[in-house]
Amino acid sequence: MLRIGMLTSGGDCQALNAAMRGVVKGLFSERDDVEIYGFQEGYKGLIYSNFKMLTSRDFSGILTVGGTILGTSRQPFKLMRVPDENGLDKVEAMKHTYHKLNLNCLVVLGGNGTHKTANMLREEGLNVITLPKTIDNDLWGTDMTFGFQSAVDIATDTIDRIHTTATSHSRVFIVEVMGHKVGWVTLHAGIAGGADIILLPEIPYDINTIVKAIERRKKAGKLFTIIAVAEGAISKSDAKLSKKELKEKQAKKNYPSVAYELAEKIQKKSNQEVRITVPGHTQRGGSPCPYDRVLATRLGAAAANLILQEKYGYMVAIKNGEITKVPLKEVAGKLKFVDPKSDIIREARMTGISFGNE
Amino acid sequence: MLRIGMLTSGGDCQALNAAMRGVVKGLFSERDDVEIYGFQEGYKGLIYSNFKMLTSRDFSGILTVGGTILGTSRQPFKLMRVPDENGLDKVEAMKHTYHKLNLNCLVVLGGNGTHKTANMLREEGLNVITLPKTIDNDLWGTDMTFGFQSAVDIATDTIDRIHTTATSHSRVFIVEVMGHKVGWVTLHAGIAGGADIILLPEIPYDINTIVKAIERRKKAGKLFTIIAVAEGAISKSDAKLSKKELKEKQAKKNYPSVAYELAEKIQKKSNQEVRITVPGHTQRGGSPCPYDRVLATRLGAAAANLILQEKYGYMVAIKNGEITKVPLKEVAGKLKFVDPKSDIIREARMTGISFGNE
Amino acid sequence: MLRIGMLTSGGDCQALNAAMRGVVKGLFSERDDVEIYGFQEGYKGLIYSNFKMLTSRDFSGILTVGGTILGTSRQPFKLMRVPDENGLDKVEAMKHTYHKLNLNCLVVLGGNGTHKTANMLREEGLNVITLPKTIDNDLWGTDMTFGFQSAVDIATDTIDRIHTTATSHSRVFIVEVMGHKVGWVTLHAGIAGGADIILLPEIPYDINTIVKAIERRKKAGKLFTIIAVAEGAISKSDAKLSKKELKEKQAKKNYPSVAYELAEKIQKKSNQEVRITVPGHTQRGGSPCPYDRVLATRLGAAAANLILQEKYGYMVAIKNGEITKVPLKEVAGKLKFVDPKSDIIREARMTGISFGNE
Amino acid sequence: MLRIGMLTSGGDCQALNAAMRGVVKGLFSERDDVEIYGFQEGYKGLIYSNFKMLTSRDFSGILTVGGTILGTSRQPFKLMRVPDENGLDKVEAMKHTYHKLNLNCLVVLGGNGTHKTANMLREEGLNVITLPKTIDNDLWGTDMTFGFQSAVDIATDTIDRIHTTATSHSRVFIVEVMGHKVGWVTLHAGIAGGADIILLPEIPYDINTIVKAIERRKKAGKLFTIIAVAEGAISKSDAKLSKKELKEKQAKKNYPSVAYELAEKIQKKSNQEVRITVPGHTQRGGSPCPYDRVLATRLGAAAANLILQEKYGYMVAIKNGEITKVPLKEVAGKLKFVDPKSDIIREARMTGISFGNE
Repeated sequence: MLRIGMLTSGGDCQALNAAMRGVVKGLFSERDDVEIYGFQEGYKGLIYSNFKMLTSRDFSGILTVGGTILGTSRQPFKLMRVPDENGLDKVEAMKHTYHKLNLNCLVVLGGNGTHKTANMLREEGLNVITLPKTIDNDLWGTDMTFGFQSAVDIATDTIDRIHTTATSHSRVFIVEVMGHKVGWVTLHAGIAGGADIILLPEIPYDINTIVKAIERRKKAGKLFTIIAVAEGAISKSDAKLSKKELKEKQAKKNYPSVAYELAEKIQKKSNQEVRITVPGHTQRGGSPCPYDRVLATRLGAAAANLILQEKYGYMVAIKNGEITKVPLKEVAGKLKFVDPKSDIIREARMTGISFGNE
Repeated sequence: MLRIGMLTSGGDCQALNAAMRGVVKGLFSERDDVEIYGFQEGYKGLIYSNFKMLTSRDFSGILTVGGTILGTSRQPFKLMRVPDENGLDKVEAMKHTYHKLNLNCLVVLGGNGTHKTANMLREEGLNVITLPKTIDNDLWGTDMTFGFQSAVDIATDTIDRIHTTATSHSRVFIVEVMGHKVGWVTLHAGIAGGADIILLPEIPYDINTIVKAIERRKKAGKLFTIIAVAEGAISKSDAKLSKKELKEKQAKKNYPSVAYELAEKIQKKSNQEVRITVPGHTQRGGSPCPYDRVLATRLGAAAANLILQEKYGYMVAIKNGEITKVPLKEVAGKLKFVDPKSDIIREARMTGISFGNE
Repeated sequence: MLRIGMLTSGGDCQALNAAMRGVVKGLFSERDDVEIYGFQEGYKGLIYSNFKMLTSRDFSGILTVGGTILGTSRQPFKLMRVPDENGLDKVEAMKHTYHKLNLNCLVVLGGNGTHKTANMLREEGLNVITLPKTIDNDLWGTDMTFGFQSAVDIATDTIDRIHTTATSHSRVFIVEVMGHKVGWVTLHAGIAGGADIILLPEIPYDINTIVKAIERRKKAGKLFTIIAVAEGAISKSDAKLSKKELKEKQAKKNYPSVAYELAEKIQKKSNQEVRITVPGHTQRGGSPCPYDRVLATRLGAAAANLILQEKYGYMVAIKNGEITKVPLKEVAGKLKFVDPKSDIIREARMTGISFGNE
Repeated sequence: MLRIGMLTSGGDCQALNAAMRGVVKGLFSERDDVEIYGFQEGYKGLIYSNFKMLTSRDFSGILTVGGTILGTSRQPFKLMRVPDENGLDKVEAMKHTYHKLNLNCLVVLGGNGTHKTANMLREEGLNVITLPKTIDNDLWGTDMTFGFQSAVDIATDTIDRIHTTATSHSRVFIVEVMGHKVGWVTLHAGIAGGADIILLPEIPYDINTIVKAIERRKKAGKLFTIIAVAEGAISKSDAKLSKKELKEKQAKKNYPSVAYELAEKIQKKSNQEVRITVPGHTQRGGSPCPYDRVLATRLGAAAANLILQEKYGYMVAIKNGEITKVPLKEVAGKLKFVDPKSDIIREARMTGISFGNE
């Protein structure tokens, strides 16, 4: 008997269900004696032993369905060793659930924080296989995470729609795209949507450069400007502050989000009308795009393959178009940033995009 | 020779180009000697005699294109008789342009404010034909305006996407839908997207009723709640304030928009996490939906028909599925509200939707 | 106790689930003691007493889901009184099931054929309420059926995509749209997609007129022509044949469908390359569009209302924007055709569309 | 002065305009003195010196527009040295145009056949840079061609829609996907759409295997089967025929396309109803997906870069996520097939997909 625990952790994204379907179909393609324990709401389900027994039938028809049939929650890594309100050590609780159910392997779908906890569980002796899930595409060790392309599609659609209304009105439009620490979604959606200015956490901006870019467009007869800004975009001066100083500064201003801060700055420095659009959580909702479905299905099948071969302690990944595996210990805690000097940035600049920094 | 002036005024929306294409194709289907004067950026182009001569070719291929090829701007009705910075009376200026160009008719596409000005021009002796354009569907005299169904589609898509992420997380999600004075888009998108609570300007809400509805869902095992709220939704107590009092109250709080106000209230009264999505101007962007293309094309052809018959002073409209015409003087200044006692509200309630008022 | 049988019959379409959800939510909004008997695969389930007991929970989350959770099948009206292979009279069998289960009412969702059988069941003394489901929008007694607008959206999307490839290549493109007897989908999708020629069952075509229209476009510098043709479009000469003669003629030629026949004719009469696209069953697939969701939800709630008031023998309908009811006996067996002399046809002609007949 | 000729050749696809925009914006980002000669309808325009002078403004706003603003046509490589009706040698004519206009470089966007001609022009001494355009993704030397992902998206959407109608009816549905020689689009759309059987030109099928797969599903209670078949899918027995024998056999049967042949075979061997959907040219139509827009923009900028550096005789390509260049002589005439033994095929099998061969 093969006993597999499965959970999805962190913010949800598209193709979580597709990936789990791949794992389960892959396991049943070779074995009949598989039991799937679906832990509810991420690590919480593992901590409190809250699970459902699932059959292959539960994973039929979910390839195209957004969200996760297991539910998810955020369980910060740094609180994992902090006892809960009843004094329960969460890591010990997870180990206890795992051993009590006599699991052969725990399959974890998640992003950066999730992988830190998964690696800790591996260090504690559990058999763990992970799948790289995040719209942010910021996981080290894989060229691509599922959820990313779907998020890019939605953010691009937002910019596309803003484009038509922008051509009717002479204004500055700010579209705030998801990404607190990394700018992959903003970069790709910005290029795909034909944004004029793209602001990323990795490339601190200068408000004067932005205003100049807007004015240069106006002089060229282009009456509107579209700015794609990542949630975590930051000005050059703010980037120099310490974490504490920055927090204090932000607390004073209390903008709902970066787009509102940026809009205020632009309006102060120019006399342009500014409009804000925040697609927000729609970027992680709805049916996964075909690209993500194929990627997630492949990664799922590859994860099944590792389990069938009893190779544990890996994240399945895609590198150079091939599905592969990466040791969990190498992945945990590392982020993949946009390199300001990379080719894609240079190519984007060649098509007239300003990154607000020079 | 038939000399036709044309302009689009107010906020843009989908199918403006489709409607203008319908007018122009309709005119050229019967006459070869048509001159089209396209005024730039709404009434502004008429005031300052800023126009382009357009041929039928300019209207080819724009059926599916969002925005307006003429550009648009907001020119408040109440400022029309207020001289500009050079002392120019705008109404006189518009009449002057009209007569100078020896126009046979002015075709105006716009919403409520636009129609007030159009009617004033009619009263000043100009031949005017208007087309009912607005995502708000709040124009009196027509069952439907073009732009509305496209906006509903986009707002619904937003709610759909939020739905999948909502099923993964236990939260309250607020989707803010366009509509300051009327709630048509919110009502239709809310029903179509399966929102649990719909808040409209026409039905003032009680925050306690909302919180109770959220808790009732929780007790029934439904861990998330989706609220579709119109920009102009208002609480029962605020609805009792005078305009001045309300303004003062809002100035104090200074919420970016109604969704932020609502979120704060809900978080205070319950311990639910709340997430906000504001699709904003995307609701008026992008290619018109097929419904709007057919409606706009038909209205455009009907407008051409009126011009060819020299029947002026009308808005073309759709009533009971038939394209018809309504005297401008009857339309100007009247809004079409959602009736809280109408069948659609009752039917929506029967499917479990709360309007936050009882 | 309220015992309700429910079935979906004929070809499936979008919003069947949305409509059933409306009925069930509507019933439970007033009563707790409701039992829903879901008959499987249309009338077949009623004949052979094949059903599932459903709870309100089964209808949760299906607002946006295409297809029908009950399954469907075609059970031709004219075979209803023809005994099956075991000598079973189907009508008597349906009555038997109905009475055996002690049903209060049978809710039937279907199109034209389905309504004939539903009316027969009414004549046999059963309490029946029907909902107008069909992409064809050909049901007499209602301005609109659910499924129609969704089908128009998909057919229009097909024409839109063909448009971009058409502008790259100089060819004639034929898009075959669903509709054997009536042309509503083709007419609306044709106008919305900017088709140059629209061929409907209701307006027999002359191949020479079509070829002339293509050549007229060529002379005007428009190198491509897009033809939207309904499955049941027919030439003037074929329209004069008797049913038997037509069948014999078609048997000889054996075209896969009307588009192939038309392509051959055009290629013979002109030296144009012709390309065929047949979206086929995609037109009845996928998530319903927001328009259909609202319509189906409203009709469902209205059906629930009739049941709660014990008013039977009606089809719920929409007329002039209001949800209403029509006696089943008036609906059964009547089709709603496109009137060749209607306003919409005249308006379409004004925008340059040829109907291939003059 | 930099004089650049540009043409798009072969079947059109999404992101051709996006790619040309990338090239032109890239050139103007470094130089002001650029002249763009846009040859009309592919090599035809170069042969007969039919071109338009284009400015950077012509390439503004076309990022999202399907088709090609230059038009395209198929000019078979094997006819390039065959004189036209006036005795004109086409290759010499192209060289003549090139030299007459004193071009610095010819930028060619096309697929496999196009690259053979481009390489011949290079051999004749012309400076040529090419971009890999094709929905088929069958160009050797690049991991990805633009157009592919957009085509996959559309084919997947077709399968998605068929899925909902399939769950309502018990039938076999065949979706015919573009690809005469290679099966990349069918493979990816098949996996993404959750097809049960995928038939590719690279993996000849056995009809008995297909029928068995259908019956196995039936026994497992899955009443429908969806088959994604590439246009060029072939049976094992036909794959053994000589080209001549195959042609003769096909001429006898004269199926409109492979889906019709397959449907007949399945209906003969089982008593299943079969339905056919042929999305056809829609697969190359409409706005490019964001993935293709980013890829095309990057490739365009990279092509500009090569021109600015006077490095000619290359196809720009993407390999392992990096934009790179490949010598034209290595690319010309080589196809990239799906390897029946590759990981993706094995992963697809693990999720239950049958390739009809074993």
